[in-house]
Order: sequence, then structure tokens, then C-alpha cells
Amino acid sequence: MSRFLRAPFDAMEPYVPGEQPRDKAYIKLNTNESPFSPSPGVLRAVAQEAASLKLYSDPECTSLRQTAAELFGISPDNIFCGNGSDEVLNFAFMAFCGKDKGMAFPSISYGFYPVFANLYALEYDAIPLKDDFTVDPADYFHLDKNIVIANPNAPTGLSLSVSQVRSILDTNRDNLVILDEAYVDFGGESCLPLIREYDNLLVVQTFSKSRSLAGARLGFGLAQKEIIADLNKIKYSTNPYNINRETLAAGEAALREQSYYDANCKKIMENRDFTAKALEALGFEVLPSKANFLFARTPKMGGEALYLALKDKGILVRHFSRKEIADFLRITIGSMEQMQALVSAVQEILK
Amino acid sequence: MSRFLRAPFDAMEPYVPGEQPRDKAYIKLNTNESPFSPSPGVLRAVAQEAASLKLYSDPECTSLRQTAAELFGISPDNIFCGNGSDEVLNFAFMAFCGKDKGMAFPSISYGFYPVFANLYALEYDAIPLKDDFTVDPADYFHLDKNIVIANPNAPTGLSLSVSQVRSILDTNRDNLVILDEAYVDFGGESCLPLIREYDNLLVVQTFSKSRSLAGARLGFGLAQKEIIADLNKIKYSTNPYNINRETLAAGEAALREQSYYDANCKKIMENRDFTAKALEALGFEVLPSKANFLFARTPKMGGEALYLALKDKGILVRHFSRKEIADFLRITIGSMEQMQALVSAVQEILK
Repeated sequence: MSRFLRAPFDAMEPYVPGEQPRDKAYIKLNTNESPFSPSPGVLRAVAQEAASLKLYSDPECTSLRQTAAELFGISPDNIFCGNGSDEVLNFAFMAFCGKDKGMAFPSISYGFYPVFANLYALEYDAIPLKDDFTVDPADYFHLDKNIVIANPNAPTGLSLSVSQVRSILDTNRDNLVILDEAYVDFGGESCLPLIREYDNLLVVQTFSKSRSLAGARLGFGLAQKEIIADLNKIKYSTNPYNINRETLAAGEAALREQSYYDANCKKIMENRDFTAKALEALGFEVLPSKANFLFARTPKMGGEALYLALKDKGILVRHFSRKEIADFLRITIGSMEQMQALVSAVQEILK
Repeated sequence: MSRFLRAPFDAMEPYVPGEQPRDKAYIKLNTNESPFSPSPGVLRAVAQEAASLKLYSDPECTSLRQTAAELFGISPDNIFCGNGSDEVLNFAFMAFCGKDKGMAFPSISYGFYPVFANLYALEYDAIPLKDDFTVDPADYFHLDKNIVIANPNAPTGLSLSVSQVRSILDTNRDNLVILDEAYVDFGGESCLPLIREYDNLLVVQTFSKSRSLAGARLGFGLAQKEIIADLNKIKYSTNPYNINRETLAAGEAALREQSYYDANCKKIMENRDFTAKALEALGFEVLPSKANFLFARTPKMGGEALYLALKDKGILVRHFSRKEIADFLRITIGSMEQMQALVSAVQEILK
């Protein structure tokens, strides 16, 4: 820490990304990436765009937003493009979540929410999950707070229905509800259609999971145009050219090959079913996931011990040390070959 | 504006990027981009990296920082990588410039400084330039404020010597001095070596100008390691994967082909000399620029009228409406062909 850092940031605890070890080649099931390459059109678009890198990118992301608007059946004015969905969330916390109004989010969810809240010195309620690890919508009714919920939730993979989300929106007409749909393409129900009805809804999506572009950094904020204009106000006051040319080209090309990604999501869901059944057969409790990961525990071994034993066998999964979920592992769903390797390794370890 | 936007942001005036019209193909001399393509290694690296986009980028930017550290003769711990130098500046304002301490910067400089100051609700002194449009170092001595100076300055192109910068650093030992060297590679003197001596110096550089990567969005913060650690604390609290894989690969490849970019800078300086002489021959006053642009005015025609007449002829330059500089145009130095076209167009307009 330098002697110039502002006092509010002294004690701040930054987010800790999933480990990216370089000591050997792991089967990497720890950061919820896709096992599938980007589609052929993405590879072509990226190579083609390289020659134009000397020119600034389009700060309005016009072409990408138009393509997305057509695919989603909304207007380009309903779309904000972020340098990853983390940037969309960051700008949303900054724009809408002041010291005058608290935040609420599930106590077990994406670990970045409390980091954003601390960054902006916001009071927040971390609302406990139910005993079965689900989010109870009723816990969020009539709060005088802005709300952020990951749906499906991470790291549980459990999901709220559209009607459950609607009940939260209806009882929080004067609060902003940020719905983080990073994992919605693996069997969840998107609440995107609700943006027509609710001016208090901001849906956040990402290209990092179902669209195989974690390394390109692209996310969307989707809402009524006034919310999008506010996010743009923050963007144009921090970093107008927030998205580079390669990522704009990659994102647009990905949207034009939706059937490729739909087929990949279908395979991920099949591999998830296979893995869940195999782990259950080994005595695991596996939460019913709608995401591209499973959250599972076994009475035979602690979460951390199993994580370390798997790492030793060259398989990386994610373990969280918080005591309510310390028994669990979060396992990204990869290719069938990777999942078979995982199941075999678990079997050997537990033998 | 939505009804959820926080009050402090209501009246905020965002930055306005240079226009990017799509109505026809312009000779684009308005946003200080390079007329030269990225080097061959960059094109190869970008195409090669596309297949890895399914995986997150390295949040530590390890390989890029190592390559830069070797080239610059510093440690990787002295280097922060930002999504464009705008992000480095944004994080620096956020980390170091609190309400408890004001800011100072030249009244005519990069238009983003007051935007950042307003975003973070900072008091600031916009210190007037001298009558010859230079920055007077003595105006910055013994201020109890953090300081940001673009060197060379924009849009004037005028530059401080290392010893002038040193005098500001020496008289502000307890204030952070941010030196924005976006345009330093076109004949200016970099103060990067001073980071060894001064713990109150943060040098900011960009790949957008001399390295032909405006569209990739990459900038560096260079300072003693405590300052860099603070910038990382902000980054890991907002967007840990702030730089995408394509940009990391492009940046590293560019650093490995330094001689290509050195040769381009030399050509830009030659084209700048040609253009300055040609404009002077037409009666212009041209400030002695060390940047990849010229700041020039003619008694024969107002700045805005000349800007519009050039636009009409398919040449875009930048005009600022602030009255102290409303006579001037900022003209990016492009290829010799582009500069000849500019000079001919000006000649015709003034005839």
C-alpha cells in the first residue's frame, strides 16, 4: 500500500478470482468456462479485425447492439455493453446504489457483490439462503433496498422461476432489482422479457459461459432505455472505449451463430446430468443445477480435502472456505471426457 | 435518466469522444490514431489467440508485464495494465484523489481530467496555461493537491522537459503527480526513469498512439510498486479480468517489435515537420508539437469554420469550442499522402 491510497480503501478486501496455476496442465473445472471453442465465425472475425486495430473501437458498440437487439427482439436502446458482466455490475452498483439506500443479496452468491458494496461504502444485507440452499423470494419482498440476485445462483446452481422473480419485482417497485443471468443458458428461464413491464429490472448477461468467450470479456446490461442511458453516463465518464475491436467483432459473430452455442449448451446439460448421476451413485448430495456447474458434497470427505486430492490428480475444481458451504465443491461441467476423468478420480480418491 | 440514478450523477457531464461519423469515408485526422497498421507479429498473435478465447484471460497480465519490464528496464511490479490508459487514469483518480485533497491540472489539457474529478466529486483547480500555451511548472510548486499533467500536453502538443517535471515532483513530495505520457513517443522526453527516485510519481502510457493499437485498448501505469499495488486493489475490486486475451497477446507482440514502431514514430515526426512548414507557409501559427498532432490556427478563418470546410472536403480534424482555443484546430499527423491532402484542402479553402 502506498502512502497515497485513500483511507476508505485501506481495509477493502478485493475479489479473488479462481486460481490459474501454471505449474502443470490441469483439467480445468474451476472457473465455469466452456469446454467448446468459439464458433468458426468468431475465429474468422477476430483474425479479420486485427488489421483495423490502429483505429479506436466504436464507443457506441452500434453493430453489436443492433445484432443483439434483433436476436433478442428488443431495441438497441435496451442494451448496454460492458467489458465483461463484472463491468456492468460495477457500473450498476456505482450508478444506482448510493449510501442513501442499502443493498440486499443472498448471503451465498457471487462473491463479487459484497466487494462492490464495500468499494462504494454501501450498507448491505446478506440474506441467508434456506436450509436447502434455495433463495426464498419472500425474503426480498418490500425491502427498501436495491437488490441483486444471481439467477441461477452461484455457486449453488439453483434457480428461481420467472414468476418468483416477478413476485420480487412487484413488491419492490421503487427499488432496482439487478438479475445476474450469467448462467441462464443452461436450462434456466431468462427474465429478459420482463424488462418491457418493469422499469426497476436490470438483467445482466455474459458471453463468458454459454458463448465460449470468457477471454474476450463481454457482458450485457438489458433494461428499459433510461437505465441503459444511466449506465452509459457512467461509462462515458470512466472509459468510453470500454470494449475493444476484437471483442466487438467476436461478440457479434457469436450472436450470428446462435445454433452452434445452443447445441453446446445442450451437450453441457447432458454432461451435467451424467456427472450428477455418477456422483450421486458415489454417495454425493448434488444440488439440482441449472448452470454449467454442479455444487456437490459427500459425507465421506471434507470439501477442502477432496479439492486438494483432485488437484493432486491434475483436476482443478473450486472450493469455498466459508463454513456453510465448506463441505461442497463447485465443479464446472466440461466435455464428457473431462467429466469421466473427474468421476474416475473421485472414485479412486474415495476408495 | 432513470428514477434510480444517484443524485450526484444527475448533472455530471460525460466525456465526448472525437466523432466517428459513418456517412462517408473520411481522411480521419481527429482522434490521434496511427496511420500505420500494427506490426506483423501483432496480426499473427491475435489470429493465434482466438482459439483460446473460451478461457479467461490472465488477471495478473504476467507475460505482458514481464515483456514490458525487460524492455523498460524495470520490474513487473512497477507495471499496472489497464483497459486503455483511460482506465489507468480512472483507477488513479479513484484510488488516490479523495474529497479530503483537491486536484490540480492545466485548464487546457485532456478533457477527461475534469470528467474524472466530477465523477468522484473532487474539488479541482484548473490552472491556466501561459499566453504561449505552455504549462508553467512554477504554477504547480508547493500545492497541497494531487496533480495530473499530460506531457506532451493535449491538444497543444507542447512538452515539459524532465528537469521541469522534476521541479514539480520535488516541490510536491506529499502529493501524487500523475504524468500522462500518451504522446511521449513522438519526440518528448519520458519521465519513466524518475519512478526509481520519486514515490509520488505515476507515469501513464498508452498503446493507442505510437503502437497502433487504439482499437485494442491497452495502457500502462508505471510507478513504485506500492502505487501499482493500490491500482491493483481497485482493479480486483471492480474488474479483475480487465484485459482480454486478444489485447494481452497484441500488446506483448507489439513490445517485441519495438523497432517497427520506432520507425513509424520517426515517419510521423517527419510528416509533422512537413505539415507544420506547409501550414506556416500558408500563414498559420503552429505550436511546436512533440506529439502526433499539430495545434494550429490561421488569422484568415475561424477554427470552427475551417473544421467544417475540411469536413465538407472529406477531412476530419478536431475543433474544441472553448473560447481560449476556439481559433485552433488539432490535426492528427497521418501518412504523408494524408497530410498532403490536408494541406491542399486548406490551401483551396483559404484561396
